[in-house]
Amino acid sequence: MEIKVMHQIMEWNEDVSDEVKEELAAHRICLINVMGSPGAGKTSLIVRLIEALREEYRIGVIEGDIAGQIDAEKIDAMGIPVVQLDTDGACHIEAESVRHILPHFDLGNLDVLFVENIGNLVCPAEFNIGESFRLAILSVPEGDDKVVKYPLMFSTSDAVLMNKYDMLPYFEFDDARVERDTRGVNPDARIFRVSARSGEGLEELLAWLCARIDDARGSSMR
Amino acid sequence: MEIKVMHQIMEWNEDVSDEVKEELAAHRICLINVMGSPGAGKTSLIVRLIEALREEYRIGVIEGDIAGQIDAEKIDAMGIPVVQLDTDGACHIEAESVRHILPHFDLGNLDVLFVENIGNLVCPAEFNIGESFRLAILSVPEGDDKVVKYPLMFSTSDAVLMNKYDMLPYFEFDDARVERDTRGVNPDARIFRVSARSGEGLEELLAWLCARIDDARGSSMR
Repeated sequence: MEIKVMHQIMEWNEDVSDEVKEELAAHRICLINVMGSPGAGKTSLIVRLIEALREEYRIGVIEGDIAGQIDAEKIDAMGIPVVQLDTDGACHIEAESVRHILPHFDLGNLDVLFVENIGNLVCPAEFNIGESFRLAILSVPEGDDKVVKYPLMFSTSDAVLMNKYDMLPYFEFDDARVERDTRGVNPDARIFRVSARSGEGLEELLAWLCARIDDARGSSMR
Repeated sequence: MEIKVMHQIMEWNEDVSDEVKEELAAHRICLINVMGSPGAGKTSLIVRLIEALREEYRIGVIEGDIAGQIDAEKIDAMGIPVVQLDTDGACHIEAESVRHILPHFDLGNLDVLFVENIGNLVCPAEFNIGESFRLAILSVPEGDDKVVKYPLMFSTSDAVLMNKYDMLPYFEFDDARVERDTRGVNPDARIFRVSARSGEGLEELLAWLCARIDDARGSSMR
């Protein structure tokens, strides 16, 4: 019984995801679904990306959290429109939540919408939320075996970001293995080595990101 | 509809959890539910604890994983009975799975059963699996805001282990804050600062653990 119901919900989620996509396309908004473990550095990376992209794009953020609003407050302090999505215990964000939240943004004045998903390497990967593309963040301290252990997250993401790369000397982390494992489940994924703290690797990531954003927005006007 | 079904499943899970508890009690086995994020160090800590406890207790392990059997192979290499539970994508372990697995152990020759839950700070906390007690592992690189963000995990655990404590100099991690936040949601929780790698803090943890194991097994014969 459980499996059947989950299946229905997930099919319904796909329909809603398509509707969200259509609405975003009508406003030429690129939605980026940011996923990763608790503490992988999702918020820190989003903050860095906003700093680098805000001159060029009008940015908004949906902050998914099970409880509290620590992350939303960080974004709000930057003067960026942010809506906190309190999932009240739920382990992932669904397309329906995004659909409900969209009217709270001034969609005519938005180019890029980051969605920081719940800190979880499992469930969020199962639910499309109308995104243009997905970023999977894996931080060095988590270990280099995570692609093998959580394959859906890495096989469905457009880019894999090895974050906290400046911490490499302090952990037994074989980044070549992560790259190899990712290629095994997702040959087309782009792989970046970055540090939200030190800033290393961000330039390469940003070049790719801008191209993807422009592509998603159906524009080459940059 | 989703909420209603989840509710039924969770009530049923509680019944099965009680049955697992009864069966374990009949064999005087202590089940320890080990939870934490991907990469928090659950396996490394279990390996350390087995090394320290195996002279005194007969130990078995259930290794929960969504895919792969990397962790189970590590335990097997120690000569410890281990059963791999492949959840095939599911984000947590339920009591029913434990009930199915128990007959695969020689229960008459077992004192302690570690269950390494799926790497996930959210869903596993919602499901009792017949455990005597719960350990929540939070590693220093994950950040000091996790208790506020994932309160159910920390409010339902008997002990909170700050792992990778040897990495404290390299991260902005306020361990006093974690302690304070934990006390806020769970005044009775024991809090330990440990490193599976360096071994620091393990002695204090082991003293507490042995007392809890003996208590769960209804014995003071140590």
